[in-house]
Amino acid sequence: MNQEELITKITQEVMKKFNEITGTEKPSSVTKGKRTVNECESGIIINAPMDLAPYIDHTLLKPDAKQSQIDQLCQEAIQYHFCSVCIQPYWVSYCAKKLRGTGVKVCTVVGFPLGANDSRSKAYETRQAIEDGAHEIDMVINIGALKSGNIKMVEDDLRAIKRACRQTTITKAIIETFLLTDDEKVIACQLAKKVGYDFVKTSTGFAGGGATVHDVALMRRIVGPKMGIKAAGGIHNFEEAKAMIAAGATRIGTSSGVKIVNG
Amino acid sequence: MNQEELITKITQEVMKKFNEITGTEKPSSVTKGKRTVNECESGIIINAPMDLAPYIDHTLLKPDAKQSQIDQLCQEAIQYHFCSVCIQPYWVSYCAKKLRGTGVKVCTVVGFPLGANDSRSKAYETRQAIEDGAHEIDMVINIGALKSGNIKMVEDDLRAIKRACRQTTITKAIIETFLLTDDEKVIACQLAKKVGYDFVKTSTGFAGGGATVHDVALMRRIVGPKMGIKAAGGIHNFEEAKAMIAAGATRIGTSSGVKIVNG
Repeated sequence: MNQEELITKITQEVMKKFNEITGTEKPSSVTKGKRTVNECESGIIINAPMDLAPYIDHTLLKPDAKQSQIDQLCQEAIQYHFCSVCIQPYWVSYCAKKLRGTGVKVCTVVGFPLGANDSRSKAYETRQAIEDGAHEIDMVINIGALKSGNIKMVEDDLRAIKRACRQTTITKAIIETFLLTDDEKVIACQLAKKVGYDFVKTSTGFAGGGATVHDVALMRRIVGPKMGIKAAGGIHNFEEAKAMIAAGATRIGTSSGVKIVNG
Repeated sequence: MNQEELITKITQEVMKKFNEITGTEKPSSVTKGKRTVNECESGIIINAPMDLAPYIDHTLLKPDAKQSQIDQLCQEAIQYHFCSVCIQPYWVSYCAKKLRGTGVKVCTVVGFPLGANDSRSKAYETRQAIEDGAHEIDMVINIGALKSGNIKMVEDDLRAIKRACRQTTITKAIIETFLLTDDEKVIACQLAKKVGYDFVKTSTGFAGGGATVHDVALMRRIVGPKMGIKAAGGIHNFEEAKAMIAAGATRIGTSSGVKIVNG
């Protein structure tokens, strides 16, 4: 058994045990009115690495990313039929033009990566991004307010960004698991669900820690079977991505999309 | 000679040599109309650690900072007569109320820490912060645009935030030296000076590298004697802070302010 097979096998066993203990439900697609919200999801059966492509947000969020790298990101997203490109707000209008008619969506980030902005600024940034062509908004919750026990502020903040979105905009609440206790993760997931977010997302990738199988499974348990879960941060290969899907993720945020779908 | 004395001695020698080579001028205070812009600066003579206090932006920018930590930050800033507290936009109105009448200013960050936001969002965030009570705005330049050779965009972005400020607002352009080549640092400093910023600032503290004596001296050489320079990121003790001042800094951004002024 090689290393990758070993990882898969262990992951499967751990997840089996975990699901037995927690009663975790399998994720299903998210519906909003008559249409499927997570347009990329149509049931999560991963037989081959390429099957992951429609669940991948092809991501480049580095502040020093050049236009040529953004160009490459878009080209790869078209070539591999990724769900979206996930880029900084500055690049949204540029990518929206490049990707028009390709089926690849534009995903961007708000209040990123610290989440400690004023809610009105986050809402403004959201409106601006959608006007520029963003289809999906990944916002960072107010972590400091959560840590301070100001739950109402966390909820109000989530609501302000949600209100700034269109009916068709996909909304994801980044809870930044690495900085939270399990209790805080539960509260954050409950609030995102209450406010009507389409997804909860594990991580920004900028806080020193990324998605874990433990966190994804915990989040799935809290939000139930119908809400989307985006695992992001530190997912570098097919086996890791597959483990996240097995744990309950319905979307993968990664800068290693090409490597992942090539197995 | 103990370790700290050794560091001071080497720093002094290096700086002497550096100044001989580059012709670096000594920093002076910045004036804007009739009044001193950097109200905290009145000439930079550091005899004792406590002399540094008026040059320190007492900083807490962690996304998971709790209200109790923000309270402590404000208390310490009052006690030690620091120039300002430097906090996330979310905490501006809270700190502005706590610090009213104390002489301690409120400094906040915009487009932080990645700078890759849309200029209109950065400008909105600036206006909001000032309305909430911020006296100083530390904005992050558009690093990706700079790396892509889109100098006009970097300048337009700087200008958008500058325009959103009041006449009395102190503006600092964070150039994030760690991600730039020396040539790019030069361009960034020239643009900030051209647009009329009060300070250039080395780093966010979130990019993996902070202020260096080399960068501060380089920046001083580019912006000339009258513009402010804020050294921030990784300044943990008195000797490091003093070395930054010696290299040309007129403000220190640090979360170790109390330790620094206690020597």
